[in-house]
Amino acid sequence: MLDETAAGVFTIAVTPFLPNGDLDLQSVDRMVDFYVEKGATGLTVLGMMGEAGKLTATEALTIVKRVTARTSVPVVVGVSAAGFAALGSLAKDSMEASAAGVMVAPPSTLKTDDQIIGYYHGVAETLGDIPFVLQDFPLVTNVVMSPKVILRVVEDCPTCVMLKHEDWPGLEKISTLRAASDNGARRISILCGNGGLYLLEEMLRGADGAMTGFAYPEMMAQVIQAHGAGDVARARDLFDAYLPLVRYEAQPGMGLALRKYTLAKRGAIGHPTIRKPGGSLSAATIEEVDALISRQTSKLQALGIS
Amino acid sequence: MLDETAAGVFTIAVTPFLPNGDLDLQSVDRMVDFYVEKGATGLTVLGMMGEAGKLTATEALTIVKRVTARTSVPVVVGVSAAGFAALGSLAKDSMEASAAGVMVAPPSTLKTDDQIIGYYHGVAETLGDIPFVLQDFPLVTNVVMSPKVILRVVEDCPTCVMLKHEDWPGLEKISTLRAASDNGARRISILCGNGGLYLLEEMLRGADGAMTGFAYPEMMAQVIQAHGAGDVARARDLFDAYLPLVRYEAQPGMGLALRKYTLAKRGAIGHPTIRKPGGSLSAATIEEVDALISRQTSKLQALGIS
Amino acid sequence: MLDETAAGVFTIAVTPFLPNGDLDLQSVDRMVDFYVEKGATGLTVLGMMGEAGKLTATEALTIVKRVTARTSVPVVVGVSAAGFAALGSLAKDSMEASAAGVMVAPPSTLKTDDQIIGYYHGVAETLGDIPFVLQDFPLVTNVVMSPKVILRVVEDCPTCVMLKHEDWPGLEKISTLRAASDNGARRISILCGNGGLYLLEEMLRGADGAMTGFAYPEMMAQVIQAHGAGDVARARDLFDAYLPLVRYEAQPGMGLALRKYTLAKRGAIGHPTIRKPGGSLSAATIEEVDALISRQTSKLQALGIS
Amino acid sequence: MLDETAAGVFTIAVTPFLPNGDLDLQSVDRMVDFYVEKGATGLTVLGMMGEAGKLTATEALTIVKRVTARTSVPVVVGVSAAGFAALGSLAKDSMEASAAGVMVAPPSTLKTDDQIIGYYHGVAETLGDIPFVLQDFPLVTNVVMSPKVILRVVEDCPTCVMLKHEDWPGLEKISTLRAASDNGARRISILCGNGGLYLLEEMLRGADGAMTGFAYPEMMAQVIQAHGAGDVARARDLFDAYLPLVRYEAQPGMGLALRKYTLAKRGAIGHPTIRKPGGSLSAATIEEVDALISRQTSKLQALGIS
Repeated sequence: MLDETAAGVFTIAVTPFLPNGDLDLQSVDRMVDFYVEKGATGLTVLGMMGEAGKLTATEALTIVKRVTARTSVPVVVGVSAAGFAALGSLAKDSMEASAAGVMVAPPSTLKTDDQIIGYYHGVAETLGDIPFVLQDFPLVTNVVMSPKVILRVVEDCPTCVMLKHEDWPGLEKISTLRAASDNGARRISILCGNGGLYLLEEMLRGADGAMTGFAYPEMMAQVIQAHGAGDVARARDLFDAYLPLVRYEAQPGMGLALRKYTLAKRGAIGHPTIRKPGGSLSAATIEEVDALISRQTSKLQALGIS
Repeated sequence: MLDETAAGVFTIAVTPFLPNGDLDLQSVDRMVDFYVEKGATGLTVLGMMGEAGKLTATEALTIVKRVTARTSVPVVVGVSAAGFAALGSLAKDSMEASAAGVMVAPPSTLKTDDQIIGYYHGVAETLGDIPFVLQDFPLVTNVVMSPKVILRVVEDCPTCVMLKHEDWPGLEKISTLRAASDNGARRISILCGNGGLYLLEEMLRGADGAMTGFAYPEMMAQVIQAHGAGDVARARDLFDAYLPLVRYEAQPGMGLALRKYTLAKRGAIGHPTIRKPGGSLSAATIEEVDALISRQTSKLQALGIS
Repeated sequence: MLDETAAGVFTIAVTPFLPNGDLDLQSVDRMVDFYVEKGATGLTVLGMMGEAGKLTATEALTIVKRVTARTSVPVVVGVSAAGFAALGSLAKDSMEASAAGVMVAPPSTLKTDDQIIGYYHGVAETLGDIPFVLQDFPLVTNVVMSPKVILRVVEDCPTCVMLKHEDWPGLEKISTLRAASDNGARRISILCGNGGLYLLEEMLRGADGAMTGFAYPEMMAQVIQAHGAGDVARARDLFDAYLPLVRYEAQPGMGLALRKYTLAKRGAIGHPTIRKPGGSLSAATIEEVDALISRQTSKLQALGIS
Repeated sequence: MLDETAAGVFTIAVTPFLPNGDLDLQSVDRMVDFYVEKGATGLTVLGMMGEAGKLTATEALTIVKRVTARTSVPVVVGVSAAGFAALGSLAKDSMEASAAGVMVAPPSTLKTDDQIIGYYHGVAETLGDIPFVLQDFPLVTNVVMSPKVILRVVEDCPTCVMLKHEDWPGLEKISTLRAASDNGARRISILCGNGGLYLLEEMLRGADGAMTGFAYPEMMAQVIQAHGAGDVARARDLFDAYLPLVRYEAQPGMGLALRKYTLAKRGAIGHPTIRKPGGSLSAATIEEVDALISRQTSKLQALGIS
């Protein structure tokens, strides 16, 4: 069961498809092995990057079961839905399928502080004793949660054990939340998103790790390790080597196609297929990403990483 | 099968729940009978007002089957979804369950003309020969479709047979679309929403009827009939008698609770229950709506309608 | 000086232009006389309906001076701006030109409760002892203020003397704010917008009047008077007579053109001109509004109002 | 006069203030000298980063005059406004004050292709023969312009001579626009924003330079120069040295404060003051940016740049 001590790299997993759009379950196995081998301490499935909205209910549960069957690291399942019935149903089924917890993003109709808090009260009531991750991603959800709101959810809902932090800018938010837990608020896990673009600063502010889908999970693992070892200079060297690609992958809307392309190129999944509606990469884009990967490899070799 | 000649009143059906939140299938039967008795020439289920997002996939199909089993009027099923897989799957199941067609709203991520047109190309390809309704409701979807875009979808997709018109303001759009079909564009059915707030003007501009959920379907039926008989003065008298309540029900976010309250009061459903997350009515609101209904009854009696 | 006792009808004034787009100052005089004659107890200039954003700074001040020179009713000036420098500058100039107070809408970038409260702290500090109206119009600003936020601004800023209430739905908000002042919160004036579409219910909930631009200010004056006299039935009769046109004018984006057309038809301004960018009315629209006005006149005569 | 051949680095200038919030005109001079010395081939004033909305009309013109008096490089003036009157007035005054052209962003109310095109027709008509820059920045304006729309504005409006490209992702857009001009469309200048985060890829796709406010204009100048000399490897080395800071400055909402801090630290302006409403930097943020600058300096020295 997921709890407040979760740390490290929870990779946001893609959902692999065959070229005809069917689920590619063999690639699911390969991908899970790949993520764990590259340093993932947990996995998150059916998130926005997992094309959750494009799956049928049956397919969604198939993915959960396949992933949990393949690995012993904790698996978080994205269960965001328009209503609590569907949310609760997928959450229950996922926990029965050995998931460690679930993740819930706020619907874009929420505006005021009280509306957001009220929504998460309903989520917690629906979930019962299932631990959940509060997903804070305003760029996509259009819901802005102040630190005060997050702290209130943490106070009111003991089953909220983690913040998926993806506000932008969001560094001050981490500092504020950590100052609050230093002053007596319950301390929950904070794992950061944004493709890793601010990972080192996030760790320096008090985050516990990353929950994001950058196609090189080892970047996050290495930076977190160096930071944990107190070697900030090494952490910067590592981070900077990957940064040109991190930045490139951060292009919204294109990120998923770029990740699937890179994961396929790395052998982690069989095909870069995205379900419709969804884009594909132009030749110029592929050329650009290949150039960035090639240069990244050289820089890593210079740092003694092959 | 739904086609371009559809006209009259397609009532947007609510989804009845028991006080504990379970589906209330007996009320589904009663509600269907009520709608048809009050003049509905068709029904639309699983729309936004049908709390579609709060149902599990299994429940959604249960509703479709129950409704189509109860009536012989055409049933349109809302199948909007984040991806084409879920959309296509519900559409196929619905048609097998004797639905007449499906309705698709655009996802709020669509911005440019080409994005909208491209999306509906994908919808039409996914649906094959299933007829579909293009739902144009910018207040909720944030997607604004110019007449040019709608005409392009109509031209490119022969299975697009109806526009659910709910732009606001939207009267000029009807005139533009009708001028286009007068000049050779394929003429599709236009049924109007917005709770009926502009129904008479919509008919005068060339609409074929209403697709909306105002709790008195007979208002739409009576106004359309009077308009069809060329008696605009009578149509205005009827419309004006209902207008104070139409206006009150048009309050966004509250409309569903108001409709379920009124339908329950009229005996069309057993309970006004809304699934979570969802609001309830205050005592002051109930007093206001009761006063409006009472006054409406008096006005209708003065018009010879009991 | 505007204070918490303000009540009645504060008409949102249009800004009259000549056909060539220049300010039409003679029409300003005529319009002011018209509004006051029809029952306005105050005027609001340079609001959204006043095309404030289309005026140069010099023109804006010209309008303020012309209006205050013409009438002795209190004049509120819309001073919303991206920064406090421009806001404060126009406010100061307006007060020197005998305005009674200013009105400030929140910029659409504000999201959380604390951001909104912080913004109004800055507004109050900038304005010094100038009384201001808090404008709450989420349909246009995209800023949703909970009653809690409004009460906090009222508590923190003694110069906030009025709420221009235009949330939709917004009736519960009035009840909540009035319950708060019954329980000790400072009671400010609440004048309602939304074109008058919910005026009677708003008065019944505790509003002090209307601040809106419906082209028949006498509707608001008559309804408020009947309500004040305890004759709710008469208030409903009056309201219902105007409702078809109120509803028609409420079409967003078109409202201003409709109002200027009607005001010109009534002789209150010389020309219906709107500055660019802005729309004009089609022949079909003009026919519709004329039909509504004609029918409204008949209904009012039946009520003994000529 | 600005024309289609404009290229290089047009720095988006900040507006310097004294600690009390007054204009700091001596810093304007120093800043202009600094920008040009660091490689700016043009300047853009009163853009979003220039806090244009926080200036009074008089102050805005004061800035324009001070900047044009100080330098001979072309000066572009941001004149975006809610109406064409204010837009045209500032544009005319700016040209009389020796500006080279103006820049216009679309108002956020524009949605459909035709609405955007119609708006720019009005802009061009208002501006007469004044050359203008089309600003494409959907993250802030919420207006998404397809390449088709941009090409239509270019075709219809001969005075549109430049695109300030700031879509995100936007690389394919550059390729599409350049393919169009290769096929006969009028070729306009494309200068890119986004803080320089994708500068090298933008140049490789056919851009003519940068129009952005990153506090090290020499980064853009050096990368563009290396690219122009055909030395892509050198361009990458330079870009990567600055990238950690570019990324940090790209945090929306904080960018301006970070830039002013850095510019003040570099001696380009006297004070990092931002006008209200606006944020300030925390101690932790200052520590982070100082660490990034220090490391950047070391990397540049390793590349032979001091």
